[in-house]
Amino acid sequence: MFGNPGFGGGGNSGYPGGGGYPGYGQAPINPEVQQWFQAVDKDRSGQITWEELQTALINGKGENFSSTACKLMIGMFDTDRNGSIGINEFQLLYNYINQWLAVFKNYDRDHSGSIEEHELGLAFQQMGFRFSQEFVKFLIEKSDLKNHREMSVDQFVVVCIQIQRFTEAFRARDKELKGVITLAFEDFLSIALNCST
Amino acid sequence: MFGNPGFGGGGNSGYPGGGGYPGYGQAPINPEVQQWFQAVDKDRSGQITWEELQTALINGKGENFSSTACKLMIGMFDTDRNGSIGINEFQLLYNYINQWLAVFKNYDRDHSGSIEEHELGLAFQQMGFRFSQEFVKFLIEKSDLKNHREMSVDQFVVVCIQIQRFTEAFRARDKELKGVITLAFEDFLSIALNCST
Repeated sequence: MFGNPGFGGGGNSGYPGGGGYPGYGQAPINPEVQQWFQAVDKDRSGQITWEELQTALINGKGENFSSTACKLMIGMFDTDRNGSIGINEFQLLYNYINQWLAVFKNYDRDHSGSIEEHELGLAFQQMGFRFSQEFVKFLIEKSDLKNHREMSVDQFVVVCIQIQRFTEAFRARDKELKGVITLAFEDFLSIALNCST
Repeated sequence: MFGNPGFGGGGNSGYPGGGGYPGYGQAPINPEVQQWFQAVDKDRSGQITWEELQTALINGKGENFSSTACKLMIGMFDTDRNGSIGINEFQLLYNYINQWLAVFKNYDRDHSGSIEEHELGLAFQQMGFRFSQEFVKFLIEKSDLKNHREMSVDQFVVVCIQIQRFTEAFRARDKELKGVITLAFEDFLSIALNCST
C-alpha cells in the first residue's frame, strides 16, 4: 500500500486493542523505520507533517491517502500538538499503519484492494459491533460518493478510527451500559467535532 | 478568494438562513455563473466534481480550499447523489459560496484573510450561539494544527456547516427545547458520521 521504499507488513491482524491509543513507550528505533522516516521527511526538518505523510501513502487504487486520513493519523501521535511528529512518534505511527493494513487485507476477502459492503459488515461483526445493514450501506455511500460500492484502505482507516472514537465517547457517558446516553448541546457538539475531522 | 475568473461577491452578509439547505428552484442561469462553470468543468463533462471545484477555490492564504470543504459543499447540492453537480446546482452553490465569503469578510475585522479566536467568538455570538471560550479555542486549535491561532475561509465554512448540521440534528431530537437530548448508540453514530466528513 505504501510507495517506495516498500513497507514491511505488520503481522498483527487483530483490531487495534479496544479502541485505545497506543502507549508512548520509548522503544529503540527500528532501522527500517529510520529509513522510512528520512524518505518521508522531505524538508529534513526532523519532523513529519500530514502533507509529507500523504505523499508517501498510496491506497489500493493507486491514489494518495486522503488528507483526512493523514491528518487523523498524525493527530493521534502528535503528543505536543505542534502539527507534526518526530521519529519516536513516527515509529508508533508506522506500526499502527501496518496493523491497519493487515486488518484491511484480512477483510478484503476477494483481494480487490477495496472493501465492499458485505466485507465491511463482516468486519464490524468481527470487531464486536452489531450494526444494521442500513448503517453499513450508509458508511459505504459516504466513502464512495460516486458508485456507492466500495471503500479504499484510507477510507476504511478513517471510518474505523472515527467509530472507535465515537464509541469511546459514548461508552464514557453510558456508565450503566444501557446503550443510551443523555447529552447537553455543547457537550454534543464537542464530541461530534472532536471525533470527526 | 476565487482564482480566475474573478468572483462577483455576494452582498448578503447574514448567516445563511436558519441552518436549512437552499431550495432547489430552477432559476435562469446567470451568464457569470455559466462562464465560471465552463472554467471549472475542466473535462467538459457538464458536471463538476469536488476535485474540479478545489482547483478553482483559493483561500486568503493562497492555498486551495481543503478537500473536506469541497466535498462538503458539492455534497450539499448533489441532489441525485452521483458525486458531481450540473449547472443548475452549480448556480445554487455559487450563490452559497458568495454568501459565505461575505459572512467571512464581515467577521474578519482586521482584514487579515483569517479569522482569529476573538473574531470567531464574536461571529458565533452574532449567529445566536452561546459557546464557552474553551469551545471557541478548541475550534481554532482543531483548524490551525500548527499555531492554534487562526482559521482560513474554507475552514470557517467547514466548521459553520458542521455546527449548523449538528445543531439541526440536535434540535430535531430536543423537542421540548431543554438543551439536552437522549440518544441510542447507532443513532448517535449516524448523526456524528453523517454531519462530519
